[in-house]
Amino acid sequence: MIACSFERLDDKIKTFSKFGDTGKGGITRFSLSPEALMARAEYKKRMEAIGATVVTDDMGNMYATIPGSENLPAIVAGSHLDSVRQGGNFDGVLGVLTAMEVAETIVKEKIPHRHPLTVMVWTNEEGARFEPAMMSSGVICNKFDKAAMLASVAKDKPGYTFGQALEESGYIGSEKNRLTPDKYVALMELHIEQGPVLEAEGIQIGVVEGVCGMVNYEFTFVGQAGHAGTTPMKYRKDALYAAVKTIQYLHDELNELDSKLVYTTGKISAHPNIHTIIPDEVKFTLDARHQDPEVIKQVVEIIHKIPAEVEKCKVSFTEAWSRKTVNFTPEIVNYVEKSANDFGYSSMRLYSGPGHDAQFAIDVLPAAMIFVPSVGGHSHCELEFTPTEDCLNGANVLLKTVLYIDQQ
Amino acid sequence: MIACSFERLDDKIKTFSKFGDTGKGGITRFSLSPEALMARAEYKKRMEAIGATVVTDDMGNMYATIPGSENLPAIVAGSHLDSVRQGGNFDGVLGVLTAMEVAETIVKEKIPHRHPLTVMVWTNEEGARFEPAMMSSGVICNKFDKAAMLASVAKDKPGYTFGQALEESGYIGSEKNRLTPDKYVALMELHIEQGPVLEAEGIQIGVVEGVCGMVNYEFTFVGQAGHAGTTPMKYRKDALYAAVKTIQYLHDELNELDSKLVYTTGKISAHPNIHTIIPDEVKFTLDARHQDPEVIKQVVEIIHKIPAEVEKCKVSFTEAWSRKTVNFTPEIVNYVEKSANDFGYSSMRLYSGPGHDAQFAIDVLPAAMIFVPSVGGHSHCELEFTPTEDCLNGANVLLKTVLYIDQQ
Repeated sequence: MIACSFERLDDKIKTFSKFGDTGKGGITRFSLSPEALMARAEYKKRMEAIGATVVTDDMGNMYATIPGSENLPAIVAGSHLDSVRQGGNFDGVLGVLTAMEVAETIVKEKIPHRHPLTVMVWTNEEGARFEPAMMSSGVICNKFDKAAMLASVAKDKPGYTFGQALEESGYIGSEKNRLTPDKYVALMELHIEQGPVLEAEGIQIGVVEGVCGMVNYEFTFVGQAGHAGTTPMKYRKDALYAAVKTIQYLHDELNELDSKLVYTTGKISAHPNIHTIIPDEVKFTLDARHQDPEVIKQVVEIIHKIPAEVEKCKVSFTEAWSRKTVNFTPEIVNYVEKSANDFGYSSMRLYSGPGHDAQFAIDVLPAAMIFVPSVGGHSHCELEFTPTEDCLNGANVLLKTVLYIDQQ
Repeated sequence: MIACSFERLDDKIKTFSKFGDTGKGGITRFSLSPEALMARAEYKKRMEAIGATVVTDDMGNMYATIPGSENLPAIVAGSHLDSVRQGGNFDGVLGVLTAMEVAETIVKEKIPHRHPLTVMVWTNEEGARFEPAMMSSGVICNKFDKAAMLASVAKDKPGYTFGQALEESGYIGSEKNRLTPDKYVALMELHIEQGPVLEAEGIQIGVVEGVCGMVNYEFTFVGQAGHAGTTPMKYRKDALYAAVKTIQYLHDELNELDSKLVYTTGKISAHPNIHTIIPDEVKFTLDARHQDPEVIKQVVEIIHKIPAEVEKCKVSFTEAWSRKTVNFTPEIVNYVEKSANDFGYSSMRLYSGPGHDAQFAIDVLPAAMIFVPSVGGHSHCELEFTPTEDCLNGANVLLKTVLYIDQQ
C-alpha cells in the first residue's frame, strides 16, 4: 500500500522545529511573529516546489492547492503554525506538516485523485498573543466579528492590534479566497491528542467523533474574616472550609455521572490569604466536559443543587462560559476509522476535550479530525512529544481518508 | 468605690486617635514613625503633668513613674502605641491609656499606695514596618538578639534599619533602665480581646490566664498537571483535590479534640492556577492554638497521621513555627478576677490567642493581662472598636488590681 515517507515527515518536523526554537525542546511561535512568518515561508516554498498554488484570504489564512484530475471543489487538510509561549513542536504544526506530506506523497507517487488537495494554515489558533483562540476560523465561519478581532490588542504591547500585525505580515489576501462550500468539499485536521488516553491504552490512532461540550463555572464563598487565635470554631464562617465542602460535594456527585465526564477545579484563591486570618472570601472554578449534552445538563443540575449557604458562608456561582458539543461528519469519521484499519493501526473513537479550528469549520463544510498519541499526555509545554513513527501513522491515515473522500 | 473617670479616659482615646488618623475610623502608626513620636510626646507630657519621671531604655521602651509612699520596686502597667497599617484605635494604645488613667486617678484622688506606679510603652510591638512583632520586649526579656533586631530592615525602605529609626527618634536611653525584677515588682497589660467571645457571651472583663501555645504547619501536595479536557479522571493526580481531602481530614480529626482548640487553614495556593489545567502543586497552612500543651501534641499527632500519598499526590508538611503556652502569675490573675467582682462586672477566665508583650515579660517578673470586649471581634482593621464604657470597666479593674498588688 502506498504510504507517506518517514524520512520526509521527519525532515519536516525537524525543520519547522527551528522556527521559534526555545533551545529547550520546544518553540515560542506567536501568530504573525517573525518566527511564524519563517514557518509560513517554508510551507509556501515547499508547497510551490510540488506544484501548489498558494493564496491567502482576508484573515491571512493560507491555502496551498495541488490540482486534481477533475474540475471539482478541493479537499482541504491543515491546521495552524502558531504556538503558545514555550509550547511544543507538534500542537497545530503537525496537522500542517502531515497534510504537506500527504500532498507530497500524492504528487511524488502520482496517486490518481479527482479533487484538488489544499493544504491549509489557519492564522492565530492559539490566541497566545492576540485573544481569542481560534480567531481566524471563528471569523471565516461566522462565529466572531471580524472588526472586533482586528482590534484585539497584543497582551505584551499596549495598543498594538492584531489588525496591525496582520497588515505588517504581508499575508492579507482576498475575502474571496475564504474556505467556502463552493470551493471546498471537506476538511480534515490531524492533531496530537494533548492527553494521555491513546498512549495509556496503547492505541495508535484516535478517531475523533467531535469536540466535547463544556461548561465553566466560577464559585464564590463569602464568610467572615477573623483572627486565627481569637475566634472560637463555633463562631467561624470559614470561606475556605465552605469551598472545601463544595469541592467534595462536586466530586461525590459528578463521579456518579458518566465515566467519560472530565471535570477540573483548576483555579482557587482565598482572601486575605494570610495564615493567621480566617478566609472571608474564596473563589474556585469548575470546568466540565462531555460529548453528551444530557450529561452536561446533569452537571449543571448538580451545581444548582448547591445550597445558598454552606458552613454559614454565602455561596454564589456564575457560568463563565460554555460550548455545545460539536459532532464531526459521520461518513468522514468512518473513513478515518476504515483508513486506520487498512494500515492495521489500532484505533479508538473519542471526543476532543480541547477546541480546534475544525470545530468551527464543520459549520461550513463536512469535517473530521485524526488524533495521534501525546507522550505522557503533555501539551502546551516543551515536554510535548510524539515520535515520528506515530506522526507517520497519522499521515498515512490522513492520506487514505483524503483518498476515500476523493472517491465518494 | 474610687474609680477612673469616663471623661478623662474618653479624652485620652479621642486625643491619641488623632496620631496617624486614616480618616476612616482607624490609624496607621508604625513604630517610631512621626505619628508614633507624636503619641509618645503626648504620653510623656501628660505623665509629667501628674508628676511622673520619664526614662527610656536602650530599645526606646518608655517608663513614666509616679512615686509610692515607700522605697519599693514599682508596679508597671502599659502596652504599645504602634499599630499595623490601617489598624484601629484600641489595639495596644488602650493598655497605655488605661494605665495613664489609673495613674492619674491615683494622683488626683490621692489614693494611698506603697509602691511607685510605672506606665510603660513598649517599642515596636506590631512589627508592622520592622519585623518581628514584640521586638523590644523580646530583647529586654532575652528572647531576641539585640544586634539582629537593630539590623531589621524596613519593609518599605531598602536598607533602612530599625537601629537607624531608633537613633533618629531620639528615644534611645540607658540599658540600666530596662524592666528588671530589682526595680519592678509586677507587670499588668490591659488589651482588647481582638476576638468575639466576650461580646458574644455578654461578658465585661476577660481574666487572661495566659497565652495559648500554637503550631503552624505548611502542607504541600504534588500531583501532575494535565489539560482539563484531555485527562480522564482515572489518570489524574489532582493536587487540589488531595488538599481538599486533607483539609476535611484535619477538620474531622481536630473537631474531636477539646472545644477550646482553634485551628485555621488561612492560606492556600495552587499551581499553575489556570481553570483549564489540573493543579500539580497546592500548598496550604494550618495554624492551631490551645492553652494545653497536651492538646497541641494531639494536633501534631493528627498531622503526622496524614499518609505520604493522598489521591495519588505526594504529601509533605513542615512546622513553620510554634510557641509554647505561657501561663500568667496565678495570684495576679486572681486579683484581676477579684477586682472585676468588686465592681460587679461579669468576667470569664480565658487564654489569649494572639501574642502580647506581657508573655515575654512573665519570664522577668510576675505578670497578668486584662481583656475588654472587641465589638464584632474586629481587630487590626479600622472597624476595631470598644466603647469607652467597656474601656472604663477595664481601667477600673486595672486600678483595683494595681492596688491589690500594692497591698500584698
